[in-house]
Amino acid sequence: FKSKLPELPTSIFTTMSQMAKTEKALNLSQGFPDFPPDPKLLECVHDAMRKDYHQYAPLGGIFPLREQIAEKIERCYGASYHPQKEITVTVGATQAIFTAISAFVYPGDEVIVLKPAYDCYEPTIIANGGIPVLVQMKGKEHKVDWEEVASCITSKTRMIIINTPHNPSGRVFSKEEMLKLENLLRDTDIIVVSDEVYEHLVFDGRQHESASKFPDLASRSLVCASFGKTFHITGWKMGYCASPEYLMAEFQKIHEFAVFCVNHPLQHALTAYLKNPDHYLGLGKFFEEKRNLFLKGIEDSRFAFVRTMGTYFQLLDYSQISMEPDMQMAERLTKEFGIASIPISVFNKGQVDNRQLRFCFAKKEETLNRAIEILQKI
Amino acid sequence: FKSKLPELPTSIFTTMSQMAKTEKALNLSQGFPDFPPDPKLLECVHDAMRKDYHQYAPLGGIFPLREQIAEKIERCYGASYHPQKEITVTVGATQAIFTAISAFVYPGDEVIVLKPAYDCYEPTIIANGGIPVLVQMKGKEHKVDWEEVASCITSKTRMIIINTPHNPSGRVFSKEEMLKLENLLRDTDIIVVSDEVYEHLVFDGRQHESASKFPDLASRSLVCASFGKTFHITGWKMGYCASPEYLMAEFQKIHEFAVFCVNHPLQHALTAYLKNPDHYLGLGKFFEEKRNLFLKGIEDSRFAFVRTMGTYFQLLDYSQISMEPDMQMAERLTKEFGIASIPISVFNKGQVDNRQLRFCFAKKEETLNRAIEILQKI
Ligand SMILES: CSCCC(=O)C(=O)O
Ligand SMILES: CSCCC(=O)C(=O)O
Repeated sequence: FKSKLPELPTSIFTTMSQMAKTEKALNLSQGFPDFPPDPKLLECVHDAMRKDYHQYAPLGGIFPLREQIAEKIERCYGASYHPQKEITVTVGATQAIFTAISAFVYPGDEVIVLKPAYDCYEPTIIANGGIPVLVQMKGKEHKVDWEEVASCITSKTRMIIINTPHNPSGRVFSKEEMLKLENLLRDTDIIVVSDEVYEHLVFDGRQHESASKFPDLASRSLVCASFGKTFHITGWKMGYCASPEYLMAEFQKIHEFAVFCVNHPLQHALTAYLKNPDHYLGLGKFFEEKRNLFLKGIEDSRFAFVRTMGTYFQLLDYSQISMEPDMQMAERLTKEFGIASIPISVFNKGQVDNRQLRFCFAKKEETLNRAIEILQKI
Repeated sequence: FKSKLPELPTSIFTTMSQMAKTEKALNLSQGFPDFPPDPKLLECVHDAMRKDYHQYAPLGGIFPLREQIAEKIERCYGASYHPQKEITVTVGATQAIFTAISAFVYPGDEVIVLKPAYDCYEPTIIANGGIPVLVQMKGKEHKVDWEEVASCITSKTRMIIINTPHNPSGRVFSKEEMLKLENLLRDTDIIVVSDEVYEHLVFDGRQHESASKFPDLASRSLVCASFGKTFHITGWKMGYCASPEYLMAEFQKIHEFAVFCVNHPLQHALTAYLKNPDHYLGLGKFFEEKRNLFLKGIEDSRFAFVRTMGTYFQLLDYSQISMEPDMQMAERLTKEFGIASIPISVFNKGQVDNRQLRFCFAKKEETLNRAIEILQKI
């Protein structure tokens, strides 16, 4: 048989997390917190597990959770989604993105992807027989050249995938950028997959401009979100997708067979926890302080950086230290200096002159202080 | 856009479970127990939730769980699978089956499916551009005509999907049947997806003949299994796939993007619980008693049946009662008599003269007694 993904290497997250473990290095590579979730959330789990929720949940998720999600979207973005018809609870944002792509991309279809790009988009497009069309974001600020995006649209363009706040660059798209995108797509039948897993992690007074805020854009968008990133529970594998009904109907047809439904007791736990909006509204501040601590600590190191606008990632440029390729540099920092990061060339295939590594600062103060100490010495 | 699955109706499980709810009928439709899981398993969850397992699990599952799974397969079937290279923990057997099909089926490939068939195989094949080739099982005993299967093999046949113990008929394939299949496939490069979610639910001294028991068959098989069915936790969405490494490598490439990994704390809970083989070895007896109770209760009703050999389903033939189509009969029994079942025509598209309904007897004694009372009166 042929492989659908013949050139797929081992996941960089697996590689780096394993290397960190073997080398007993600080793990600032794979994006997850090193602190526990809120004890209140664990109490909600405890309560849910004692009740009778051990059998199948409804296919799209339990109604009260979808209601909570709809309220959260309404509260944050002023957009209204029908809990039953326009929201589906998923096995993390990964399954939402996979399902959204799989539901709409046919062999030969083109999908525009902005690079650098999180590593799941391209393989999912390819496994569905689609053709990724890559548009490089520009410069240290990772701006999108919307003219170039426009010039890539052909009669075969089925979909565009956007990601804001952006992993790995931390860029947060502005209202103007979103309006440009909205305009660009008007009068096309291009579908948008909007990966918004870091929606609550935006800094310095910025706002997250969700695709759901822009009516014309929202009318063609599948918005993918993550409880893992929002509640420090990446290992629970829970997220959701919100879209207009005509898209959600197709999404659910793939969802039904990809997983059927999502863990039932944990859906109840999240429902209870979501009732208090403070549980996610303070998140930007919380991570902004971590970013500030981290960047203050390394501002007179030999690493250069553009302050990240959102997400829990910071890119560091090491060109004053070494001209090594980033994979080699990441390996060396792990093995010689005891700190693991992500080489961004994996998000950026083809682009060879990266001198940047991605560090996850979703870490407790103690970890960040140790990281600073190490980075100061390099 | 086109729909990948234009003719897909609402899931019959959703339809019937909702109808049961609305009508306050006994729900013997969708396959799940109405009794709680073992309190010991819930203690394992409680322990796991208090530990630091809230972030991503490794892609293929945590090593200790994969080891426990390998030991279980070795113990039950004498087959040996490498925990890291040949086993992947999945979001239920549904995700295992979806991923196995998606990894190997290309547009235009033919996949042989034995009918009646559980409702996820065909749409998953079609969503991947494949062509389901249906072979009807024969007579009340649902025997497979292996000659007919052989005659369906063409140069385009990529895969055959088997399911033993078989849903909805309860048929358990014999050793001879599995050897026939093994022989049939020798010298072909056809891949087998073996849906064995009811592996521990076989009755009357029979043995489950797992594809993993037959070396030549196992060398081309992806065996899909379910913790949901085995431990009365269908709502947790946990299962696994076991296959030789050359197949598992491709399986994992899709798994990585379909879900990345499975709920981490619950993997630890299952690891602890699996250490005691009594937790699954007694399951056949447990459900055999339920089957016996159910069938004894209705043996002089107007329903006819062939005693189910395995699974937690019993087909009942209602042709002495009515000549209605089974969907209509299922609806009428729910609304007029207060008992919900599954019309098996949904597993058997094209076949119109079904007079059979599927009842799930994974129910507490009280529920079974109430069901008996109702069925006696019809
Ligand atoms: C699925 S593991 C990757 C986690 C993540 O989002 C990242 O590190 O970018
Ligand atoms: C995924 S809901 C269906 C449950 C089941 O296995 C059945 O009822 O056949």
